[in-house]
Amino acid sequence: MSIRHTIVCGGRVGVRSVCRSKVSAVGFSRLIGCRGFATSKMATGPFCNLDDVNKNVIKLEYAVRGPLVIRAGEIAKELQKGEKKPFSSVIKANIGDAHAMGQPYITFIRQVTALCLYPELMKSDDFPEDTKEHARTILAGCGGGSLGAYSESVGVEVIRRHVAQYIEERDGGIPSDYSNIILSGGASEAIKSVMALLNRPDGDRAVGVMVPIPQYPLYSATVAEFGMHQINYYLDEPRAWALDMNELKRSLEEARASCLPRLLVVINPGNPTGSVLTRQNIEDIIRFAFNERLIIMADEVYQHNVYAADREFHSFKKVLSEMGEPYSTMELASFMSCSKGYMGECGLRGGYCELLNFDPKVKAMLFKMISAKLCSTVHGQAVMDCVVNPPRPGEPSYALYDKERRSVLSSLKERATLIADTFNSMEGFTCNQVQGAMYAFPQLELPEKAVEAAKAAGQAPDVFYAFQLLENTGICVVPGSGFGQRPGTYHFRTTILPQTPLLKEMLARMQEFHQKFIKQYQ
Amino acid sequence: MSIRHTIVCGGRVGVRSVCRSKVSAVGFSRLIGCRGFATSKMATGPFCNLDDVNKNVIKLEYAVRGPLVIRAGEIAKELQKGEKKPFSSVIKANIGDAHAMGQPYITFIRQVTALCLYPELMKSDDFPEDTKEHARTILAGCGGGSLGAYSESVGVEVIRRHVAQYIEERDGGIPSDYSNIILSGGASEAIKSVMALLNRPDGDRAVGVMVPIPQYPLYSATVAEFGMHQINYYLDEPRAWALDMNELKRSLEEARASCLPRLLVVINPGNPTGSVLTRQNIEDIIRFAFNERLIIMADEVYQHNVYAADREFHSFKKVLSEMGEPYSTMELASFMSCSKGYMGECGLRGGYCELLNFDPKVKAMLFKMISAKLCSTVHGQAVMDCVVNPPRPGEPSYALYDKERRSVLSSLKERATLIADTFNSMEGFTCNQVQGAMYAFPQLELPEKAVEAAKAAGQAPDVFYAFQLLENTGICVVPGSGFGQRPGTYHFRTTILPQTPLLKEMLARMQEFHQKFIKQYQ
Repeated sequence: MSIRHTIVCGGRVGVRSVCRSKVSAVGFSRLIGCRGFATSKMATGPFCNLDDVNKNVIKLEYAVRGPLVIRAGEIAKELQKGEKKPFSSVIKANIGDAHAMGQPYITFIRQVTALCLYPELMKSDDFPEDTKEHARTILAGCGGGSLGAYSESVGVEVIRRHVAQYIEERDGGIPSDYSNIILSGGASEAIKSVMALLNRPDGDRAVGVMVPIPQYPLYSATVAEFGMHQINYYLDEPRAWALDMNELKRSLEEARASCLPRLLVVINPGNPTGSVLTRQNIEDIIRFAFNERLIIMADEVYQHNVYAADREFHSFKKVLSEMGEPYSTMELASFMSCSKGYMGECGLRGGYCELLNFDPKVKAMLFKMISAKLCSTVHGQAVMDCVVNPPRPGEPSYALYDKERRSVLSSLKERATLIADTFNSMEGFTCNQVQGAMYAFPQLELPEKAVEAAKAAGQAPDVFYAFQLLENTGICVVPGSGFGQRPGTYHFRTTILPQTPLLKEMLARMQEFHQKFIKQYQ
Repeated sequence: MSIRHTIVCGGRVGVRSVCRSKVSAVGFSRLIGCRGFATSKMATGPFCNLDDVNKNVIKLEYAVRGPLVIRAGEIAKELQKGEKKPFSSVIKANIGDAHAMGQPYITFIRQVTALCLYPELMKSDDFPEDTKEHARTILAGCGGGSLGAYSESVGVEVIRRHVAQYIEERDGGIPSDYSNIILSGGASEAIKSVMALLNRPDGDRAVGVMVPIPQYPLYSATVAEFGMHQINYYLDEPRAWALDMNELKRSLEEARASCLPRLLVVINPGNPTGSVLTRQNIEDIIRFAFNERLIIMADEVYQHNVYAADREFHSFKKVLSEMGEPYSTMELASFMSCSKGYMGECGLRGGYCELLNFDPKVKAMLFKMISAKLCSTVHGQAVMDCVVNPPRPGEPSYALYDKERRSVLSSLKERATLIADTFNSMEGFTCNQVQGAMYAFPQLELPEKAVEAAKAAGQAPDVFYAFQLLENTGICVVPGSGFGQRPGTYHFRTTILPQTPLLKEMLARMQEFHQKFIKQYQ
């Protein structure tokens, strides 16, 4: 810890003299003969400044909650205080936070977990019998029959079994073993755990993680936090953000000299791209990963969010299993969450990870590592249970569940089309079809003068644009540089989550702003 | 990743030849000219073995959920299957998991959070009006009025404000600023975050963390996981596990050459010791930390659990503030949880951390770091809200809340006395008074022959004893070596959580076992 005060030396009966100077912690701690009581008024805390903070933490960035979002929060408070703005409300299109944008909860999920939480409600006639049955099953798996007991670190066994059954059904019967399932606080926690587990550098050679560009910034943030090496591979924007095998090879070859490539991250359906990978593309990726002995981390949290008529969700597990040996023997970590899909239960932090083909000893190390944090929220685990074990046709809750689920998904589908069509109708914008997930990632042309103005303001051009958009319209999006983009191209990510009338208003505000912006910098 | 197969070289039209040998990942990746498709049947996954796992993860241990606990789970399943044992049930005294041991929930907490979760319940007459008011306040602070929305990464603002008010009241009016409060998924998550934040080694010199021995093994596990340096200071068993200033100095002096001492962990009330520090002891610790420019991490999760008539809980913040300058200017991180106290809501993962006197830039780095994980469970945050903002006298829920709270705490107090008294009545056992927290940590004399038998079995003597205890009585405790103990002394940690009749049975089983054990090895 660096000491900020100039030389102050004093003594006291019975204590050693004190000596402080502008030296670093190491320097100070080496002055062993010269330490003791700090009695001077100058000698106060705090002891610790930025020089004492984890270098990797200083490096890491997470744009989805960066300075732009902080400014959006300030603007919202300014509006509340009555400040006059050219707009009346902030629209937060920066984060995939469905409930915050007015998406209603799925009644079944809330009923089952409320019953688990407060079993007195079992006496109520307002809860359908099947929700009570679900709650009883969950509670029977909990210590003392209470969500308040710790679960095993990997999660409540009966919920892990339900997850395995869900995966089997999803993948047309390909077996899933519950002992390969870990329940986690959202997908993020499990993703970080798997990355931590395999972070075994060799001397100066860091572990290499292949990350798509654009990517969801949890990956770059975690790579930075753990001191790993990020290998960027660019997604093919003109081909609906597909993964290009030559690009994967290029990025890997270039990185090989400076790191130990180990992990290949694929996000499907894509965040921020809105793409849904074809089966052929997935097969090619699997072959590539196999040949290069990479472990695929399949971020499949948007598996329920597919809108394009000509696309469907293929899990990496299913494709890899159907390709047969040797591909079916390689490790795969697949992640899922209760935050996305039709449920949007972001705040309740449910998630799971399936670890396929992991060496049992390696898996045991992961289980040991997560045990020190005891367990993920058991309530979040119960939410995940509702997602993987929903009401079946004929059960009392089914009709409402099905209606609510369809309503959310069809509305998202409508908005996916609306947003891409609108961007494509705007001059200077091109936007791939939003095939899935919850985002559009349009490319925009910026006039040379705007690029210069950004430079003068000390901002990247897309950041400059996004700040201008925010200050002038109240719309908060995330600049493309927060996810990565090909140099010289400019994008932003917007969610498709504002409900349709608000989304229309948002697009109208954007259109008007963009025209003015172009005019200003022409 | 190491490749386990012997040389297999094959080729295919259009692909490069394949070459594999017993070489390490680095070796293999350097054979760049010799890579390509893996077509042989031998060339299968998994690619990854223990040699590819994070070395720090391999090192870390977390005894509270170690092999003994895994064996206890197996025994429980064996009993279920009808296997004959010299006992009829497993008693899990290894973990502070109150609900799992039959402690009932606090109705107020479950009512408020059920209302938050399923606001339809606002219509019900079965919920007192004040629980509805609490729930409305919480929901008004949530995005879209839903627990399903992400909160700010540091937590819901109104809950952070309630935490600050709670701390002010607890500490007799010393101000607490909500902007210093972080809500976390249990205390563990915040503890790990603060340790990660300040993990700034200098070359080979790791950051030193002073950890009490015995300690709660989250600290040793995290030190290992983050590659920090553990500085062990022994607690003074004959003086009720107090912190001895000479011992603190000794441990620090000895460690200084090999690390950069930065953090001083103090657990009060103590886990596993059951001690409650005197105010004088806390003042001495603060002076020591100030002089050595250490940041105190005060693990105060048992602040509600004080049983000894001559002890009370003094928060480090209160003492440090009342000591005035310069002590009141030093950094302090204090941690609290909803898992302990009278509530025991372990599975719901609520917790907070107050960061006192941190440099705003350092704090900003912490906030940025945790933002990549989005937020802790908002439901767990709501539980924390109920703990820091309980019903007040005169409110409809007060009487029941007060009765339930007193009932849990007075029963814990009774069990704290029962357990220490019983141990002290047993030959070969000495046990400090359980002044607070939820554990007893008795010392036991082991005959020389038992120590030899342990050696022959390849186990530490206390581990040997604990396994024998488990196999013969079904009682699962954690051996002292899982927490640390002075060399040559033997302890175990048991919780005081089994309800009184079961606790009595447990102690009787222990007594009988111990007599037989001593006889066997005399």
